[in-house]
Amino acid sequence: MVIKAYGAYAGDKPLESLEITRRAVSEHDVQIDIAYCGICHSDLHQVRAEWAGTRFPCVPGHEIVGRISAVGAHVSGLKLGDLVGVGCIVDSCKHCEECDAGLENYCDGMVGTYNFPTPDAPGWTLGGYSQQIVVHERYVLRIRHPEEQLAAVAPLLCAGITTYSPLRHWNAGPGKKVGIVGIGGLGHMGVKLAHAMGAHVVAFTTSESKREAAKTLGADEVVVSRNADELAAHAKSFDLIVDTVAAPHDLDAYLALLKRDGALTLVGAPASPHPSPEVFHLIFKRRSIAGSMIGGIPETQEMLDFCAEHGIVSDIELIGIDEVNASYERLLKGDVKYRFVIDNATLAAAA
Amino acid sequence: MVIKAYGAYAGDKPLESLEITRRAVSEHDVQIDIAYCGICHSDLHQVRAEWAGTRFPCVPGHEIVGRISAVGAHVSGLKLGDLVGVGCIVDSCKHCEECDAGLENYCDGMVGTYNFPTPDAPGWTLGGYSQQIVVHERYVLRIRHPEEQLAAVAPLLCAGITTYSPLRHWNAGPGKKVGIVGIGGLGHMGVKLAHAMGAHVVAFTTSESKREAAKTLGADEVVVSRNADELAAHAKSFDLIVDTVAAPHDLDAYLALLKRDGALTLVGAPASPHPSPEVFHLIFKRRSIAGSMIGGIPETQEMLDFCAEHGIVSDIELIGIDEVNASYERLLKGDVKYRFVIDNATLAAAA
Repeated sequence: MVIKAYGAYAGDKPLESLEITRRAVSEHDVQIDIAYCGICHSDLHQVRAEWAGTRFPCVPGHEIVGRISAVGAHVSGLKLGDLVGVGCIVDSCKHCEECDAGLENYCDGMVGTYNFPTPDAPGWTLGGYSQQIVVHERYVLRIRHPEEQLAAVAPLLCAGITTYSPLRHWNAGPGKKVGIVGIGGLGHMGVKLAHAMGAHVVAFTTSESKREAAKTLGADEVVVSRNADELAAHAKSFDLIVDTVAAPHDLDAYLALLKRDGALTLVGAPASPHPSPEVFHLIFKRRSIAGSMIGGIPETQEMLDFCAEHGIVSDIELIGIDEVNASYERLLKGDVKYRFVIDNATLAAAA
Repeated sequence: MVIKAYGAYAGDKPLESLEITRRAVSEHDVQIDIAYCGICHSDLHQVRAEWAGTRFPCVPGHEIVGRISAVGAHVSGLKLGDLVGVGCIVDSCKHCEECDAGLENYCDGMVGTYNFPTPDAPGWTLGGYSQQIVVHERYVLRIRHPEEQLAAVAPLLCAGITTYSPLRHWNAGPGKKVGIVGIGGLGHMGVKLAHAMGAHVVAFTTSESKREAAKTLGADEVVVSRNADELAAHAKSFDLIVDTVAAPHDLDAYLALLKRDGALTLVGAPASPHPSPEVFHLIFKRRSIAGSMIGGIPETQEMLDFCAEHGIVSDIELIGIDEVNASYERLLKGDVKYRFVIDNATLAAAA
């Protein structure tokens, strides 16, 4: 079926309206009419070819929510009309150690929602800036939030799980002091989630202007990271710091804030490396620098259910599809609180 | 009491014979007649002022073994004539979370065996290149090896525990694949210990000439790290890699060899930073880069007992005190298999 989408034909071209096809619904597939799709910073990196290997035309988007409009014959537990989501993963090998553990995100055969090889036309996956998507049932998440929150649920599929997974893996919870670096799309979810998990949450921002906003999100304390004295007051006190900042920056300032066995977990991938961290900071307190990439499918469902139970959604700015290019420019300036979400209904009228 | 020692008066001066005093034995102190002291690369860094803050005269040495020659009135479990050891730690605050957990090595008040502030003359600690040392009983380790192995036990007090602790903390054992980078003083102990713990051990060396020697130490496989093909054959397969190399080097090559949730643990502290690691390597498999610093006192005792039980000692070259400066030059060239140990009896005749 031919549907409308929005994408770019080259890294230096703006996104524009285009037509794509989706595969026929097979036995284990679910077809989703996409209602909303969040805009992730990765979309911008990939579509502008700032990361290697972008295939064009590129249709980004991996924070997808909508309603099921067709199901394959062997699909179980999902039916026509269900509210569902699709995140960053649309396929994986399904038989490796990682897949068996529900950690499809670490499967070597993971197929990302856009720009990954697929037998479907045109040969690489096309994402959620589109009217519909067809996905194997394994990678389809159930949404239990009220329908009126649906647009604000979309960013949970990437920004939510990307922060939820390291918080869970490194045991954020009561009695733990957790830092979130960067109060943007990912970071604002990190603050909300860590707070809901019961941790003592400290938000780190470079911007004095975000101090009150971060408290509103659930931060117990806010540190403006340009102020060395504010940082020093937290030396050796954190169990975990989740760093969402994708621009190269000084990691030593955060390592010094970790207590013994504390972890600095990076979820942002800078296009060029961070300044090299000082090994002494690691050795002196058995600290670690780790990375974490989105989350597995079972954990993503757990996160969505946790958010539904705790009334957590993303803070969003809803836009029409014709505002995508302008929103990218605002994203680069950090001018969004905190996530742009596309109203995919506007695709129908896109020129 | 005035005793003989060997140390340096400045970073650019050779070590020479000098006289120092040790404090009187107080209630909880143990006085040890030092039989042997290992030479650690840290000794060289510190005495040559390559690390900040060296206090002169500097008497290095923190791989100390000997026999108790006096005990304080309230010392328990240690008596005159016992074979004992002292490692890198001679004091700590004794009441923090780390001390309570037996992790004195991570106590902010840890007092290292040399070059740390102390009320004793001359105001900083003086190490094991000396005839005697007086140490609080808490930091004195029992040695259960046969006496004829005593010289070869000395390096266990630093090189042994520095590799044992991360191997235990990151669960080296049967079913685990463990890498040891650098087959020198630390690395050769790492190979022996990981092998004795039952792990599958891969030794990484830059030197083709060490291939057979590493197997003799207990390595199941040896990879010459200059050979990219040899490295690539081990991609994504390690649970843990303990990196003992203190010179700046490429960490990405080792990160790429870790499986999901694997850790690259650094125990060597380079004078200048390693090239900055690639964040993608961390994120894609939830890998981590960690540090580890020696070990706590209970774990050091556990390590010594483990080594006694498994017949493990260091491979050493015994030298007289007048060979210390020459041995430093050989150490810089990697020309030692694998640890120099000073015969402290030779101090008596030192000019």
